[in-house]
Amino acid sequence: MTVTECAAYLRAHDGYLLLTHKSPDGDTLGSAGALCHALRRLGKRASLCPNPEITERYLSYVAPYLGESRTGETIVSVDMAEPKLYPKGFTGAVALAIDHHPSNTFFAEQTLLKAEKASCGEIVLELIEELLGAPDRTEADLLYVALSTDCGCFQYGNTDAAAHRAAARLIECGAEIAPLNKELFRSFSFARLRLEGMIFSTLHSERDHQLNLAVVTREMMRESGATEDDCDDLANLAGKVAGNRVAITVREEPDGKAHASLRTDGSVNATEICALFGGGGHKMASGCTVDTDVHILAAQLLEAVNAAWPE
Amino acid sequence: MTVTECAAYLRAHDGYLLLTHKSPDGDTLGSAGALCHALRRLGKRASLCPNPEITERYLSYVAPYLGESRTGETIVSVDMAEPKLYPKGFTGAVALAIDHHPSNTFFAEQTLLKAEKASCGEIVLELIEELLGAPDRTEADLLYVALSTDCGCFQYGNTDAAAHRAAARLIECGAEIAPLNKELFRSFSFARLRLEGMIFSTLHSERDHQLNLAVVTREMMRESGATEDDCDDLANLAGKVAGNRVAITVREEPDGKAHASLRTDGSVNATEICALFGGGGHKMASGCTVDTDVHILAAQLLEAVNAAWPE
Repeated sequence: MTVTECAAYLRAHDGYLLLTHKSPDGDTLGSAGALCHALRRLGKRASLCPNPEITERYLSYVAPYLGESRTGETIVSVDMAEPKLYPKGFTGAVALAIDHHPSNTFFAEQTLLKAEKASCGEIVLELIEELLGAPDRTEADLLYVALSTDCGCFQYGNTDAAAHRAAARLIECGAEIAPLNKELFRSFSFARLRLEGMIFSTLHSERDHQLNLAVVTREMMRESGATEDDCDDLANLAGKVAGNRVAITVREEPDGKAHASLRTDGSVNATEICALFGGGGHKMASGCTVDTDVHILAAQLLEAVNAAWPE
Repeated sequence: MTVTECAAYLRAHDGYLLLTHKSPDGDTLGSAGALCHALRRLGKRASLCPNPEITERYLSYVAPYLGESRTGETIVSVDMAEPKLYPKGFTGAVALAIDHHPSNTFFAEQTLLKAEKASCGEIVLELIEELLGAPDRTEADLLYVALSTDCGCFQYGNTDAAAHRAAARLIECGAEIAPLNKELFRSFSFARLRLEGMIFSTLHSERDHQLNLAVVTREMMRESGATEDDCDDLANLAGKVAGNRVAITVREEPDGKAHASLRTDGSVNATEICALFGGGGHKMASGCTVDTDVHILAAQLLEAVNAAWPE
């Protein structure tokens, strides 16, 4: 389906139930919120399907659009690659999928897929331009949430010229990016900052900072007051050290087991190292879980990585 | 002077010495480096005036353009608002100033000032487009350094649609933004991360995280191995707490005095608080230096802020 065809479809139908994906992120929520707002501007009935996993971080953005029903006349999924990702509690058939994942399985009756886009928000922007000329301020804010979170505020590898042009367009349509950037990228829970503090103040570094190790214990979780919600992206902290090539993060799980994540620049094969401990993954990012003490697994991983270090 | 007039000027002269400002940042260095490269492509002699304050962070970007001479036939300053900001060791007259600071004092014989631009890099981009059609890859990288650092990778308040459009243009001209973003925004010295770790793991928070206090002692500096180079922006760390309205940072100076920075959302007047301790500044950002122990000044500031808290 093209954007023009999809816009015609949206004009022709009514009674929209919009689905966001499991473990919803800024892109699925911002895109669905903006689409819902635009459909209402078109005079349509539209709401978001309840998604019990929406976190505090994003709730206020989508609260005005959240419905109570899990069904509708026209069910549209936003930023969803496959039915496994339906929000908890939803069963049914999807009429239209709007997505940017190359892995989309074409599970819906109709699909608008633009796999070259950094975010689903950019596709919804094009749809709204086709339907209504331009997003209004509310939609521009929501689409900025979608776009900026999916490309790590223009830092991640998926950031391209089109992503920057979409941001420029949203600003021109009235997106207030200063408070959004502060909320989304410069603001962290107190518990998260305390936990990061403990991790960084105990960081271990070898080989002129090319090899870095972070250990996260249950004791640190307790002392900082951090919950699972505060643990996004912990495996990337050790890799922030200037000069880092291999970052090891070992975390004590609630059941006492040790879970390790290995991130490398490719010089050391992360899959091979983690295979030694019964784990696996990709060459540059792998993991393993072992029923042992975190410090013991950390020492063993350091030894294995050092043994595999390219001379 | 317009961009077209400035381009004509650059075509008509030769023997360029490019000045970067005191305490050089990414914008002055990236802009001057890109302009130097473009002038050389035009067949001109051009180099950057030595600037002893260039930090490790930026040295590799500008090393190919750094000259040894502090004089030239045509002296051009880049991103410089006034002669006070000449790089250390330079004396002389500036023929042409290329700048974006509204405070520019028109100290040069000729001035190309575009005060509406988020970065000086965007002005140099327009100049290069006028002179050579488009920046080459090297210039695109250098201009991305200028632009992205001056707007905090598109997070600061000066980020506008034009800044995003300039980024899009630079990517289309071959800027390799993924490694640049990693180096500039996701990579920190080990000592800096250790210091941040100590600061966050001792962060004090009151009033449901609306009031936050960070204390930085000489002991923490010693233990982390941090130097002045690692201390950029320390006053903004406490303000990262979600819900923060007033952030206090108290730092023990090398001479044992206590220096405090106060950042507020305007609800508490930072100038009035700091005036109590002989300091000053703006309503939302002020400072003071007191010959006392850091912990004593911290306690006094907490008391003063609490007394001024709006009910």
